[in-house]
Amino acid sequence: LSSKFESLDYDICENSLLIDEERTKGYQFIAKKDLLRWVIMIFIGIFTALIACCIDIAIEEGSGVKFNFLKKQVDQCVEDGCLSIPFLYWILCNLVPVLIGSLLVVYVEPVAAGSGIPQVKCYLNGVKVPRIVRVKTLIVKAIGVTCSVLGGLAVGKEGPMIHSGAVVAAGLSQGKSTTLRKDFKLFTYFREDHEKRDFVSGGAAAGVAAAFGAPVGGVLFSLEEGASFWNQSLTWRIFFCSLISTFTLNVVLSTYHGRPGELTYSGLLNFGKFDNTSYDFIEIPLFILMGILGGLLGALFNHLNFKLTVFRIRNITKRYVKVLEAVLVSAVTATVGMGMILYTNDCKPLGDDPTKYPVQMYCGDGQYSAIGAIWFQTPEGSHKLTSILMFFAFYFFLSCWTYGLSVSSGLFIPSLLTGAAWGRVVGMGMEYMFPDKSWVNPGKYALIGAAAQLGGVVRMTISLTVILIEATGNLTLGLPLMITLLMAKWVGDYFNEGIYDTHIRLMGVPILEWEPPPLSRNIHATEVMSTPVISFSSVENVGRIIDILTNERYNGFPVVDTPMYNDGRTFGKIRGLILRSQLIVMLQHKLYNETAESWSHKGYTLKLFRDAYPRYPTIQQVHVSDEERHFTVDLRPIMNPSPYSVMHSSTLPRIFKLFRGLGLRHVIVVNDNNEVVGIVTRKDLARYR
Amino acid sequence: LSSKFESLDYDICENSLLIDEERTKGYQFIAKKDLLRWVIMIFIGIFTALIACCIDIAIEEGSGVKFNFLKKQVDQCVEDGCLSIPFLYWILCNLVPVLIGSLLVVYVEPVAAGSGIPQVKCYLNGVKVPRIVRVKTLIVKAIGVTCSVLGGLAVGKEGPMIHSGAVVAAGLSQGKSTTLRKDFKLFTYFREDHEKRDFVSGGAAAGVAAAFGAPVGGVLFSLEEGASFWNQSLTWRIFFCSLISTFTLNVVLSTYHGRPGELTYSGLLNFGKFDNTSYDFIEIPLFILMGILGGLLGALFNHLNFKLTVFRIRNITKRYVKVLEAVLVSAVTATVGMGMILYTNDCKPLGDDPTKYPVQMYCGDGQYSAIGAIWFQTPEGSHKLTSILMFFAFYFFLSCWTYGLSVSSGLFIPSLLTGAAWGRVVGMGMEYMFPDKSWVNPGKYALIGAAAQLGGVVRMTISLTVILIEATGNLTLGLPLMITLLMAKWVGDYFNEGIYDTHIRLMGVPILEWEPPPLSRNIHATEVMSTPVISFSSVENVGRIIDILTNERYNGFPVVDTPMYNDGRTFGKIRGLILRSQLIVMLQHKLYNETAESWSHKGYTLKLFRDAYPRYPTIQQVHVSDEERHFTVDLRPIMNPSPYSVMHSSTLPRIFKLFRGLGLRHVIVVNDNNEVVGIVTRKDLARYR
Ligand SMILES: Nc1ncnc2c1ncn2[C@@H]1O[C@H](COP(=O)(O)OP(=O)(O)OP(=O)(O)O)[C@@H](O)[C@H]1O
Ligand SMILES: Nc1ncnc2c1ncn2[C@@H]1O[C@H](COP(=O)(O)OP(=O)(O)OP(=O)(O)O)[C@@H](O)[C@H]1O
Ligand SMILES: [Mg+2]
Ligand SMILES: [Mg+2]
Repeated sequence: LSSKFESLDYDICENSLLIDEERTKGYQFIAKKDLLRWVIMIFIGIFTALIACCIDIAIEEGSGVKFNFLKKQVDQCVEDGCLSIPFLYWILCNLVPVLIGSLLVVYVEPVAAGSGIPQVKCYLNGVKVPRIVRVKTLIVKAIGVTCSVLGGLAVGKEGPMIHSGAVVAAGLSQGKSTTLRKDFKLFTYFREDHEKRDFVSGGAAAGVAAAFGAPVGGVLFSLEEGASFWNQSLTWRIFFCSLISTFTLNVVLSTYHGRPGELTYSGLLNFGKFDNTSYDFIEIPLFILMGILGGLLGALFNHLNFKLTVFRIRNITKRYVKVLEAVLVSAVTATVGMGMILYTNDCKPLGDDPTKYPVQMYCGDGQYSAIGAIWFQTPEGSHKLTSILMFFAFYFFLSCWTYGLSVSSGLFIPSLLTGAAWGRVVGMGMEYMFPDKSWVNPGKYALIGAAAQLGGVVRMTISLTVILIEATGNLTLGLPLMITLLMAKWVGDYFNEGIYDTHIRLMGVPILEWEPPPLSRNIHATEVMSTPVISFSSVENVGRIIDILTNERYNGFPVVDTPMYNDGRTFGKIRGLILRSQLIVMLQHKLYNETAESWSHKGYTLKLFRDAYPRYPTIQQVHVSDEERHFTVDLRPIMNPSPYSVMHSSTLPRIFKLFRGLGLRHVIVVNDNNEVVGIVTRKDLARYR
Repeated sequence: LSSKFESLDYDICENSLLIDEERTKGYQFIAKKDLLRWVIMIFIGIFTALIACCIDIAIEEGSGVKFNFLKKQVDQCVEDGCLSIPFLYWILCNLVPVLIGSLLVVYVEPVAAGSGIPQVKCYLNGVKVPRIVRVKTLIVKAIGVTCSVLGGLAVGKEGPMIHSGAVVAAGLSQGKSTTLRKDFKLFTYFREDHEKRDFVSGGAAAGVAAAFGAPVGGVLFSLEEGASFWNQSLTWRIFFCSLISTFTLNVVLSTYHGRPGELTYSGLLNFGKFDNTSYDFIEIPLFILMGILGGLLGALFNHLNFKLTVFRIRNITKRYVKVLEAVLVSAVTATVGMGMILYTNDCKPLGDDPTKYPVQMYCGDGQYSAIGAIWFQTPEGSHKLTSILMFFAFYFFLSCWTYGLSVSSGLFIPSLLTGAAWGRVVGMGMEYMFPDKSWVNPGKYALIGAAAQLGGVVRMTISLTVILIEATGNLTLGLPLMITLLMAKWVGDYFNEGIYDTHIRLMGVPILEWEPPPLSRNIHATEVMSTPVISFSSVENVGRIIDILTNERYNGFPVVDTPMYNDGRTFGKIRGLILRSQLIVMLQHKLYNETAESWSHKGYTLKLFRDAYPRYPTIQQVHVSDEERHFTVDLRPIMNPSPYSVMHSSTLPRIFKLFRGLGLRHVIVVNDNNEVVGIVTRKDLARYR
């Protein structure tokens, strides 16, 4: 477990300042706060959707320019008989965006690499991944993903959109950006981990809603991947936020596409038209089999990607090597694509093509290259077995190689494409076997295959079912989708974890599972906790505080009565809990007892703490004179006066449930006399698995 | 708050027996239990669906017989010019089933009255409503709802189906039925509140899935209305359970309808066909207005029903009066229906009628009475303004009067019908105003109106959105539905609570909200808790246990060290917590210290406690001789050795979060020295609002 990750604190520090504030401001304040939460959610929804629109439109415009240019080159060259020139152009058109994207990611903001879903998952689980919700990350991510999609990599834009939603939420809800050095003095009451995390779950949901046009799916994603508890009113706000996001996206995109007011989302992937989407009894076993296959392929994908990631962590550490790898993958992808177009001969008549830019290549006039359409845009163009199989094989490995590169990239679309490819092969087999059944429809199997593959890789069930239903606008296939996804998850879980969890493990994040580890009831608090505990007394010497904060990296300290006798095992009666950040703010503002007359009449309030949130100064940045070191500070008005504590005889599952259920950061372990004997943090619990 | 409700205990009592069991049985046992949970969920799904099918089929067959009979009478009499005879027949055909249904409910199982959703909600919230998950209740409910629907009351069958699912789950998961005096010795490991409640949430979801064909909606219903925390693996099981339920229902019903294998659910209500279900910008304000109207109407409905229920509680207490009221409502309903058919003249040509049994009445040959179709089957037959408006007015008040009668009855269908009626009126207005717009479609407004009305009455949002989307099989209207439902909820909540919550309040159930009451941070544990506390010492005298259990009704007792001095305010150091049921089982099996040699070699295990679950004997049923009263029992191996406790300085919100978040039954309040000073239960917390 890496020590660079700090926890979020979902528990509210109910110190006397907060209680005073609540008492003086009364009901109106609560109502105002509640209203504001809704308002902020509206803005989160709108901004997330706008960013998604920007990415969408940039990609669409960009690829339009690129494809038109390439098509001209290729078509010209087919006549002239030259080959290498369009090929070089193609490679170039792919390399340049990928190079830009990966330079940005590697040199400007490395944390913007990948899909961002693992990081958002960590955040929702209660772990702060450094720099993950910053404006800089958002910008790099948005530009980066546009570049990688334009560069023809086997990536999608959906994961980054979800991450963008989270950043937007974290930024907007705070009413300030530390990166941009701008404090709008808005929403100061939401400057605490608890509120921020709530908003971020709304933002993630809005991201899903914008990426897939799936508002309900967004809510479920936030819950399935994130929240450990279900709060009705929060869920409603999240729902509202994803609603607004879908709506905004639809408005903007329909206007962009020249059909303003037509608010029906066109769907994520085009699986061909199916007017008749009923299914039959005897298909259920087939769906189950496809689910199993998806699980197997997903497990293979995750295993390969795991090995690759380990290799990358060990060997690809230099920055320029990372950029080089990205460029290499881009070149390989382009070469493979070009090769397939050249060496398979899969022509279809123009007119019924599903793509916007038909590629003629070596096909006769009035025809277009189906395999070209696959590579350029969507895999639904071709119906030729060999080309689909080849596409599947190449794309599977390419997308596996691509995920984890130092570029912004999502995993949804490549998995869906791979799955749709083998699903379509299954569909062809079915058509061959049951030529006269009305329910045999290759498009249906493509969708099921896509779901199975994606489910096998990411191992989500409910949220993914709903996302796919909403994204394809097809409700009748709900049941088959669910069956397939459940099977894919079960089979996949037999072999390894989902890809996101794999990456989270590799990052060393102390993430907490849903349930305490099995067979852990014989592990007691005394084994889990850290001891000796560094603690403070209610009125503490400034010098001691400075020394401890300088020498220790802990973030929370029990406040205790000075023990009557000290046997080195107990540390005084528990009085409260104080956070490093609170101590630092106190020292920074010199709230010493000895100088009380100079500040006490100003009535210091929570404002000091909110203004400093979330990037508190380090202890080195706080200047304390030698004289001041002999002063004292009174911790009692600031500390949390009733932290959750457990008895030393408690078992691990009980501590775990307390910790996870309430979203705590520190649990204090006490003995029979309520004396502190140890402290338990997230890292102590995450060690048990 | 009524004292007849006891709490469920979601917290697991980790006593040494459990730890021993876990240690000796090892991983395999855990894996087996986990597998069993899935298996039980399968059965819950299947049985819930089968019961729903039985109700469905009974109603369909019954109404077929009834309508054919009546139609013959009516058609004959229209020719003969008589009027009173078919009217009398009609009244009779309605009265008899309602009479049977209400007799059953009133004299056999009063708890089967109403929809059962409030009771299921209470159960999921953690309150045991007596007799609510018994087999007898299930039988009365199933027969009762068939009778009330057949009797032509303004009721639906959906609520009772959800309740049925909960009962099935509670019964199956325990592998025994105390009512039927049958113990299959199956699943004994699931005999505890924690597991049972998990299964019941699955059952409720399966009920929703069976009632509306909405598996995802079922999961969301269970979560929105029930669980206070979100557990991923539990959610997956719930999802699986509703999946199985939908599937079984589809298989059985499609076979019954003679189209075996066609697994596509036909949908709950027929809102007319809409091929073109897109919507336009300018409709959004209209949807908002409709949502507001729905909220207002819903609030009115709830207010009237509240007054009516209060009146009923005060005045309608005699059993026969309850039956009489049900019969009266049935007669009025029939009379109003007949009257409308007679006095409005709304004939439409046969052929395009949406109903199975067209009613000719006074219409010419080749025509049918649209208003007859409304009353008999579905409100979508008529397109005449006056008849729809009259239908709306009558049905609104009739359904309000009906809900709360002593019959089994659901609220969904009547609300949907009422809403569809005014929605259709709105649609007509739109058609009049925008005759040439393609998106004006009365069916769409009927659906929105139905959603608004139902949302205004029950105040669910996400789950209801998804249920309606799944039930109508229409995904494109998702966004309008959400907007409407959210508005309806907001507007309705401004005036009063949802109908289910109103009834829960009136029953006096100590239900816990999602959040602690606002502005409660200045309330401390000392004000919330009960004191003095009745407690036991670790080794306690049998006579004292008997006396206390006989004289007090408490269900939980702290186990303490005998205090060194007793000042009447503290009650010894906390050692654990023991439940009344545990004490009773110990006494029943005479596990005395003094007779240890006679039982200790048998190795008493958790089996004793599981066998007695959930209906433990009362203390009066336990026979203890005078000699045995001087014996002692050792509570330590049985008690929960590390109950969650809070400091006396804790605030109400902290206790509330602990209690609600972990699903506790008792929280012990301790002082600085870890001595018990008070105890907090659900009722203490529910008092604050
Ligand atoms: N006040 C303390 N005294 C002694 N040990 C502590 C104290 N606080 C934390 N620890 C221990 O130090 C180890 C690492 O601390 P960790 O970084 O998790 O704590 P933290 O920084 O307070 O919390 P987090 O990083 O989760 O915000 C853990 O094993 C923890 O139990
Ligand atoms: N052991 C006890 N000693 C003293 N008071 C108690 C004790 N247990 C409960 N009470 C108090 O008695 C009142 C009613 O008790 P209640 O019926 O809620 O408790 P219970 O039966 O133990 O719990 P529940 O009914 O929720 O299962 C509450 O105010 C509670 O605080
Ligand atoms: Mg730390
Ligand atoms: Mg009680």
